[in-house]
Amino acid sequence: MAFKVGILGLGTVGTGTVQLLLDPTGRQALLKEVEVYKVGVKSPDKTRAVSLPTAVVTTDLEAIVKDPAVDIVVELIGGLEPARSLILQAINNGKHVVTANKAVIARFGDEIFTAANAAGVYVMLEAAVGGGIPVIQPLKQSLSVNRITAVTGIVNGTTNYILTAMRDRGSDFAEVLAEAQQLGYAEADPTADVDGLDAADKIAILASLAFGGRIKLQDVYCEGIRNVSKADINYAEKLGFVIKLLAIAKKAHSSNSLSLRVHPTLVPQSHPLASINGVYNAILVEGEPLGQVMFFGPGAGAGATASAVVSDILAIAATLKTGTTKPHPLMSCSHQEYCEKAPMEDLVTRFYARFLTQDHPGVIGKLGTCFGNCGVSLESVVQTGIHDNLAEIVVVTHDVREGDFNASLAEIRALPAISSIASLLRVL
Amino acid sequence: MAFKVGILGLGTVGTGTVQLLLDPTGRQALLKEVEVYKVGVKSPDKTRAVSLPTAVVTTDLEAIVKDPAVDIVVELIGGLEPARSLILQAINNGKHVVTANKAVIARFGDEIFTAANAAGVYVMLEAAVGGGIPVIQPLKQSLSVNRITAVTGIVNGTTNYILTAMRDRGSDFAEVLAEAQQLGYAEADPTADVDGLDAADKIAILASLAFGGRIKLQDVYCEGIRNVSKADINYAEKLGFVIKLLAIAKKAHSSNSLSLRVHPTLVPQSHPLASINGVYNAILVEGEPLGQVMFFGPGAGAGATASAVVSDILAIAATLKTGTTKPHPLMSCSHQEYCEKAPMEDLVTRFYARFLTQDHPGVIGKLGTCFGNCGVSLESVVQTGIHDNLAEIVVVTHDVREGDFNASLAEIRALPAISSIASLLRVL
Repeated sequence: MAFKVGILGLGTVGTGTVQLLLDPTGRQALLKEVEVYKVGVKSPDKTRAVSLPTAVVTTDLEAIVKDPAVDIVVELIGGLEPARSLILQAINNGKHVVTANKAVIARFGDEIFTAANAAGVYVMLEAAVGGGIPVIQPLKQSLSVNRITAVTGIVNGTTNYILTAMRDRGSDFAEVLAEAQQLGYAEADPTADVDGLDAADKIAILASLAFGGRIKLQDVYCEGIRNVSKADINYAEKLGFVIKLLAIAKKAHSSNSLSLRVHPTLVPQSHPLASINGVYNAILVEGEPLGQVMFFGPGAGAGATASAVVSDILAIAATLKTGTTKPHPLMSCSHQEYCEKAPMEDLVTRFYARFLTQDHPGVIGKLGTCFGNCGVSLESVVQTGIHDNLAEIVVVTHDVREGDFNASLAEIRALPAISSIASLLRVL
Repeated sequence: MAFKVGILGLGTVGTGTVQLLLDPTGRQALLKEVEVYKVGVKSPDKTRAVSLPTAVVTTDLEAIVKDPAVDIVVELIGGLEPARSLILQAINNGKHVVTANKAVIARFGDEIFTAANAAGVYVMLEAAVGGGIPVIQPLKQSLSVNRITAVTGIVNGTTNYILTAMRDRGSDFAEVLAEAQQLGYAEADPTADVDGLDAADKIAILASLAFGGRIKLQDVYCEGIRNVSKADINYAEKLGFVIKLLAIAKKAHSSNSLSLRVHPTLVPQSHPLASINGVYNAILVEGEPLGQVMFFGPGAGAGATASAVVSDILAIAATLKTGTTKPHPLMSCSHQEYCEKAPMEDLVTRFYARFLTQDHPGVIGKLGTCFGNCGVSLESVVQTGIHDNLAEIVVVTHDVREGDFNASLAEIRALPAISSIASLLRVL
């Protein structure tokens, strides 16, 4: 008995997946029963790193998702359409689906999982978040015995590469971005990465699994790294922090609602996420009674992502092998309710702020008064020097309600001594 | 339909497990179908943190493993006997087994898994290694699509606590051990931890799963941390390393045999394992095509271990829920062959050595000649100072065959100028 796989797309990840499946020796024995039955491509005549029989390669992707012989459809074309339609067609034709497509799952997960449950098939997405790191399966299975309180991740390798390089070399964002584009670590249009949209897709998926509810992508607050300056990276370092783009899903203190957000964050140097550098990803899961566990690994790349894709194929094949027709409760995705979003103004966090002020005596006192008026208590205030006749004052607060902090900023902006607020960042 | 669990032992982990199972709200919904049916204890009248109906608690552990109503036996009494016999009886009575007992699995895994396969039941052991860290299931499932090349872990919290404290405070081993015993981080008899035996049990289990073969515990080379001195920790730090007790299972360069070993190791400060401090555990898995992934978390504690135990109960319940009688290929443990052990003298690694020598000119030259005679090339040689009229010389080698390094040491010991070899450590 062989499980027939139809793969849509033969780009980097598709090629890695086919190479892995065609070379099963020394891996889980069940992989020998998985057959690369069809591979759908755009350009069949393109030279490729993997050689496949002519009968396997086709340009007719719809034929693959409808082929009665196909057991598992592996969607690796990316983007929203035709990926979404092909996935839905595969499901409606009774195929199990494996996808690496975070964008389509974050936007159309409801539609896709509703269809999958109706059809009695699995939709698996280990490769959609964290590349080769096994994090989706632990969240659905092992870790689900916990009451999860927070998922905090460095889930975008491009921005982590940029922030790491900015710190290591004291370079500006624009300079490092240009270099990352040359090296292929950043796209020509870097928007999805540097503005945090890719990380938002991923935290929406992780939050949905960790907290057992559907997530509306627009509920994820999203702020990218374009405004992170080398000055802030330096001040952060002196204060004992590194700046990371974190994707966070966290139960609010006083209710069941979820704070969902992506933003550059000052992370204490002793925190496990602080030492995740370069293109690596890491996901920290906190829960009761577990405490903290962290998963670390390559967030992208053909081999790592292929490992995740094939692990999903393997999981489906193993379940099919048991011959049951009843769905496996830990592989299905059955939640129907939406998670409630906690408003950003109710977020309780520390803040880092950098002010440019007139070099007058008493400015720190005035700042302190505005903060105090709004109930914002300060952990440290440092006047770092004078630039262009302006004094630079860096403030780190204790935990405050974001709404209260914003109210204090409104008062501060009205102070004649304040020239500008050069940066505002949250602190983990 | 409820799944009836019989728990053997109500110590720290047993209590954590019962507390979790009795409080399923907000966790995976399937846990509501798991019933704490029997709990076997030694002293039924002891005051406990968890209150159970009288009918649930019994001192007759054999009755639990034979009870036809019990679906899953959870062995949390630890030690070799009666744990081994009770597990085997449970299996022979058709019960699935969950255990946190690394000692019994490392020693009697062959017997236990042979019996389990014959009886068509699962034996699950997530809690046996790495406390709450989900690492056993990923090795058996997701990561098994890779050809694993190495598993490297900090898997003993007590020794990691001791080494971390020695470094942070510049203290001696004996001093920190005494304090760890007072704090409850080390046992009154610390042998199993500080001599590396507990870590050896755990790497035998991890290696068996990662490399798909049985492991003889006596094949694991084992060296503890009693001889790690604060002097070596200091020198290591100056050379860019931290000293960790690593448990390593690694494919040999040129053959299919496995190097299996536990020993204190100089780890480069930039390595992901270098920043795992205190009682935390971490396991780094390397494979093709994945690259590296690391799992990090609490290596012990009631809550963390209970999370792992209950995740195994959940996995069994989920599979039973599908109504199949065929074994799930990724939950069974089917390998029968033994892994071949690579001899330690064929290990290729870097070494750190500290020599006490007469303070004569030319000693470094003589040392260098002995190393050169045996093909050992040096990365650094530092004369660190004079103590008690003896010069102290610290050497770090490039990668060498351990047999060749030992041959060079035999020559060096014969040099009149050499007073003693104060320490010898491997370098990652």
